[in-house]
Amino acid sequence: MNKKINIAVVGLGQIGIYLLNELSKKKRDIELKTGKKINIVAISAKNINKKRKFKINKKIFYKNPINIIKKCKVDILFEAIGLSDGISKKIVEISLKNKIHVITPNKALIAKHGDYLSSLAEKNKVNLEFEASVAGGIPILRTIKEGLATNKINKVYGILNGTCNYILSEMEKSRETFLNVLRKAQKLGYAEPSNPKLDLNGYDAFAKIRILSSLSFNKKISKSKCLMEGIENIEFKDVDIANQLNYRIKLLGITELINNKLFERVHPCMVKKDSYIGNVSGVMNAIIVNGHPVGESILQGEGAGPGATSSALMSDLLSILRGNIKYPFGIPSKKRKITKIYNVSNYFNSLYLRFEVRDKPGVLSQITKSLAQKNISVERLIQIPDHKSKTASIVIITHKSNENDAQNCLKSFKSNKNVLKRPTLIRLL
Amino acid sequence: MNKKINIAVVGLGQIGIYLLNELSKKKRDIELKTGKKINIVAISAKNINKKRKFKINKKIFYKNPINIIKKCKVDILFEAIGLSDGISKKIVEISLKNKIHVITPNKALIAKHGDYLSSLAEKNKVNLEFEASVAGGIPILRTIKEGLATNKINKVYGILNGTCNYILSEMEKSRETFLNVLRKAQKLGYAEPSNPKLDLNGYDAFAKIRILSSLSFNKKISKSKCLMEGIENIEFKDVDIANQLNYRIKLLGITELINNKLFERVHPCMVKKDSYIGNVSGVMNAIIVNGHPVGESILQGEGAGPGATSSALMSDLLSILRGNIKYPFGIPSKKRKITKIYNVSNYFNSLYLRFEVRDKPGVLSQITKSLAQKNISVERLIQIPDHKSKTASIVIITHKSNENDAQNCLKSFKSNKNVLKRPTLIRLL
Repeated sequence: MNKKINIAVVGLGQIGIYLLNELSKKKRDIELKTGKKINIVAISAKNINKKRKFKINKKIFYKNPINIIKKCKVDILFEAIGLSDGISKKIVEISLKNKIHVITPNKALIAKHGDYLSSLAEKNKVNLEFEASVAGGIPILRTIKEGLATNKINKVYGILNGTCNYILSEMEKSRETFLNVLRKAQKLGYAEPSNPKLDLNGYDAFAKIRILSSLSFNKKISKSKCLMEGIENIEFKDVDIANQLNYRIKLLGITELINNKLFERVHPCMVKKDSYIGNVSGVMNAIIVNGHPVGESILQGEGAGPGATSSALMSDLLSILRGNIKYPFGIPSKKRKITKIYNVSNYFNSLYLRFEVRDKPGVLSQITKSLAQKNISVERLIQIPDHKSKTASIVIITHKSNENDAQNCLKSFKSNKNVLKRPTLIRLL
Repeated sequence: MNKKINIAVVGLGQIGIYLLNELSKKKRDIELKTGKKINIVAISAKNINKKRKFKINKKIFYKNPINIIKKCKVDILFEAIGLSDGISKKIVEISLKNKIHVITPNKALIAKHGDYLSSLAEKNKVNLEFEASVAGGIPILRTIKEGLATNKINKVYGILNGTCNYILSEMEKSRETFLNVLRKAQKLGYAEPSNPKLDLNGYDAFAKIRILSSLSFNKKISKSKCLMEGIENIEFKDVDIANQLNYRIKLLGITELINNKLFERVHPCMVKKDSYIGNVSGVMNAIIVNGHPVGESILQGEGAGPGATSSALMSDLLSILRGNIKYPFGIPSKKRKITKIYNVSNYFNSLYLRFEVRDKPGVLSQITKSLAQKNISVERLIQIPDHKSKTASIVIITHKSNENDAQNCLKSFKSNKNVLKRPTLIRLL
């Protein structure tokens, strides 16, 4: 690699523009640490005139990023557009084919096309770096690929979506409904103002779990969706009852190998209030890695926002500048195998169930009888009456039960007129 | 670097022997990840016949490690003897001069001779890696050097000594004295059986803080000792009172730049029970890094033991095998400056003070008067009488006070016959 390095930044939204500013502010620091002089030779975005936090150099602006590759000599390109396909995929693909290193925070792209793009990078002997795609400010990918390189990892889990964690924490704190808190999150910039769905339904966390799995277990990125549930159906009532039972509700992403089969899942979890993960609140992200021989490692930090994301993008840049050419997923693409997928219906777990029922004799016995028939045994049961409406909430914590049996059992209450709505199911950690 | 890499391991204690076993177990994994074939060509220890957990190959055994350099072609040498000088320093020095990469978990050596040895490594264009020297299982040095590479770090602190953290946690849990718990720790292998002093007096944590400072702030390793206190004088009474006040006592290492002056310290701290750091218990280590733009990053994991240490040593090995030649302290030695040292007497902090006094009229007023004269103002005061012995404990939490004034004030009670022993001072975080 020459001493002078040409850099292009494609996508000048919140992250792209912050990065651009960091790059010019830290030129000297980068030269000190790597001996390389960086030079920003091209930038690209849809709209040249959009109002931005920092000024851009319009002389190096390209409306179509593909033209950058045609007209400039670029060594390293940052993709910060953020689509899973379309122009994001195209510019990364063309760059790698032209032996340009690529750095991206784009989890949707990597979770969907990471296998293909990494083999393309390997073929062209350039780096494809995506530290910022999972838990922005936490250098978790580098930690798995390098810091814990020779450990045998069997489980990785944590809080991977700051938006959901903020909403759940805030519901408990302010005792408000999901929708009210969501609106607050949108005002504060913690949730997308127009379409927050991908955060709330677990999709965002699932993309990150896929990337974590393939790095931790040296496997291809999985395509199947074992279990994905978001927080849209979490009611304040559940947050409140959890609180009384000494639990908190957290949206967790979990990936583990069970008998060499991959079990990836994202869903709300009841976690103990005095556990580590129960105390990670607000927009924070946290990841726990179980490996041998290292034991349990915990990493916590800001998961999103331009500052944390830029920190990760810059660490990727420095890694490339130091000449640390690596397999994007830690081992050669050809050696990464397809994993068998764990059958969710084999999954046993303790469950929190909440039934809203008419408060009249015999209802409780109907419920407990149905549960018993499916071998779901009750560890703890609380009935909370609402005298005004002559209804009651029946909350049950079960012993370890089969996921499938539990789901079938809950469905069976559909025809029971005393059960007023679909029962709520939240898994315990 | 050739495809075949010759490795020597010097020092076959708990760590060296575990490492040796890991190296042979993970040969294939290492080749997969780096393309390099490792070969253990030499091992060395004082005693060839000592009883060890894993068998050694006596054919490659050297009593004197210096002979390894003379007789073998070695690419990478592990130093796992652990002295700050003597043969540890000698073998590292000779190896670097002979263009052999060195990996070591030896914090005493690095904290004392790191500046010299790193410039030697740079001169000879080889790596000197010491990830395992700080918080074994936590890849904190790599995180600061690489993962958070371009962040401006202003403070790093945490629990850096697992022995002390175990003792303090266990004192609270089992309600036993320091000495009883120390004995338990020695039995469990958490504390040195013969001489646990270097753990207990803060020396071990201080060496780690020095390494963290120089990496975080890009400075030479400091030689001065701002503030070092261990846990030897922590009584169960303090642990118990802390508990009642909703605090816990933790031995913390803290390094920060205050007006560009370096303030390094290791001392017991009163931390809030519901804080993150207040909930790190047992032999765990935890480190908190404040940086810009990344915000606050937290890393937690096993701090010691052969498994965690080997994990770090192996990550250093893979870094070298990937050809990641780096400045040992992140930037060239010549650019690392000597820092000015912060004057501890300028330090303001809230303090926990405990006075053991005769329970008679006027004593409390003598104490509060003396404190007032030194401008130490009381935030909270609790008097706990012991009717049997006609004594009392007076516990005071102060507002932010000057460290020097507080120390002088405490000394002034020496001549006061109503104050039965030297008052206890523990800083609040």
